[in-house]
Amino acid sequence: MPQTSFSIDTLHQKVARIFLNAGLSPQQAQPVARVITAGERDGCKSHGVYRVDGCLRTLRAGKVQPLAQPALADDGGGVIRVDADGGFSPAAFELGAPVLVERAKTLGVAALVINNCTHFSALWPEIEVLTDAGLAAMAMCPSYSSVAPSGGNAALLGTNPFAFGWPRPDNPPYVFDFATSVVARGEIELHRQAGKPLPEGWAVDVEGNPTTDPEAALAGAMLPFGAHKGSAISTMIELLAGAMIGDLTSDEALAYLGTTSILPHHGELILAFSPERFSAGRPGDPFARADALIDAIVGQGARLPSQRRFAARKASVRDGIVLSEAEVALLDRLETAGAQDG
Amino acid sequence: MPQTSFSIDTLHQKVARIFLNAGLSPQQAQPVARVITAGERDGCKSHGVYRVDGCLRTLRAGKVQPLAQPALADDGGGVIRVDADGGFSPAAFELGAPVLVERAKTLGVAALVINNCTHFSALWPEIEVLTDAGLAAMAMCPSYSSVAPSGGNAALLGTNPFAFGWPRPDNPPYVFDFATSVVARGEIELHRQAGKPLPEGWAVDVEGNPTTDPEAALAGAMLPFGAHKGSAISTMIELLAGAMIGDLTSDEALAYLGTTSILPHHGELILAFSPERFSAGRPGDPFARADALIDAIVGQGARLPSQRRFAARKASVRDGIVLSEAEVALLDRLETAGAQDG
Repeated sequence: MPQTSFSIDTLHQKVARIFLNAGLSPQQAQPVARVITAGERDGCKSHGVYRVDGCLRTLRAGKVQPLAQPALADDGGGVIRVDADGGFSPAAFELGAPVLVERAKTLGVAALVINNCTHFSALWPEIEVLTDAGLAAMAMCPSYSSVAPSGGNAALLGTNPFAFGWPRPDNPPYVFDFATSVVARGEIELHRQAGKPLPEGWAVDVEGNPTTDPEAALAGAMLPFGAHKGSAISTMIELLAGAMIGDLTSDEALAYLGTTSILPHHGELILAFSPERFSAGRPGDPFARADALIDAIVGQGARLPSQRRFAARKASVRDGIVLSEAEVALLDRLETAGAQDG
Repeated sequence: MPQTSFSIDTLHQKVARIFLNAGLSPQQAQPVARVITAGERDGCKSHGVYRVDGCLRTLRAGKVQPLAQPALADDGGGVIRVDADGGFSPAAFELGAPVLVERAKTLGVAALVINNCTHFSALWPEIEVLTDAGLAAMAMCPSYSSVAPSGGNAALLGTNPFAFGWPRPDNPPYVFDFATSVVARGEIELHRQAGKPLPEGWAVDVEGNPTTDPEAALAGAMLPFGAHKGSAISTMIELLAGAMIGDLTSDEALAYLGTTSILPHHGELILAFSPERFSAGRPGDPFARADALIDAIVGQGARLPSQRRFAARKASVRDGIVLSEAEVALLDRLETAGAQDG
């Protein structure tokens, strides 16, 4: 299969041009391009250039504001708020992150609330900004109703991602970032496209009965991971990163959009913790003790989350990001189309 | 089966006398008795009077300090710390909770760290103190190594409980509290006692192979709930509520005790969130919007976590707490034994 290799910066510039040509302000386009390029760099195809088209469709549907100007509200307490002004989340996050870092280092724990945004990225790009600053971090957000609560029969919860990171001075951070559904919705789409039945336990049909038919699953609802425990965590995410922060739950987000074919609009909650502050006065170095635990996990042959991603990143930094001819052709077409529209 | 009914207060006094007779200070005995009585009141037999004996064994083993005097450290920031002084956790929590509540209301988010404690209770008694104060809350702690990480083959992680609560003005709070292992260790003990095989997926033997033999499972390791996702959450708990707070991980807790037959010694992390602060300036009432979500879950026939517990509580408040003759005889014996030792 013919391929083209891009440096990280070249791909970033290309993706940013697409969004600039489509009418986004530089303040919106650059952070969106950074997050998409990071996804492609880390081998996360579902969060890489594949996302460009969905972003543009959401823009054409009028459900994201290309010239949004995120605004920071900070009363000096533990909660920093950024109103994304109806734009994409990455610009809002980049505005709030430095304040979150400063506040977590001052108070020990702090929270960043992002409101009123279109959120399409994974959560690890945000988590890693915080681990790079030496903080532990937790992030979560709703999406739109596609998951039935455990014991229920209809889509209500979102795939509600939950992410966590721990900084490691001499290693990539410990990072996980996963949907609280058994699988991401994209996995079911892939089974449908391939004409393959789903494994048991992924989904229910519109009647609430277990199904292995991808079409029936997409019409019905996915199931949470870990049965009632995963369902409870997904519900926690709706409550904390929806109701508590005064932003849409997955059910409300679906009502607002009327479709799951464009990107969801809601808020996000990010917590940051200073290990120095939390361990102050206690024996031992928290980073060394964490490393001992992580080494013991790896030592029994278990894999750490994100290891595949960090390996892909290393290869991308060394060899560039490799795209297929089809992907390049798509990016070229989107770049030109946006310029012609604009 | 002959039974005796106790009022909540009468049972509390009886349990407290056992601990006072065993040499605990009132500052230690009363909070321990409160937590154990609350477990029995809520029909949580595994956290009710059943726990008294384990507490006393840990005391006799010299692994918990009967006269511990918890000490609060508060620098006015977001992290409040209580050193439990080697005592039971409930006294430490009761000392820190009012400060945590005040701080979460002032800053929006705050954390209570408990260090150097013997922890035997469920996490919901602590969560409900915070939801009763109108706060959302999250709590977690390590235990001692009995769970293999997903893909691993030996006990390293603890059963690491994770709990969350959301306050509901006109209803009992939304509360979950579960082990991040597939099941609690006690479930495997019960299968062993009953001579019944375990369901698939609960445990591995000492070689790391899946097993349904309870004996082999107890010698080997339990598995996390939700495969790699639950394993990642359990690891997060080790990192945040072990390494970060400068207290023992499950591996270190087991090394310290040398046995899983007495209660674990470690720390705990509790986060509290003010919904008023997090939703300030945003449209809608967070409590009403949360209720709509929770009603929708119940409306599809799904059960909320803790509902069985709240129903048991209601019955206990109305009819008293009913204990079997064997339980009463045990409590009588422990009460007298402690008095004779003392």
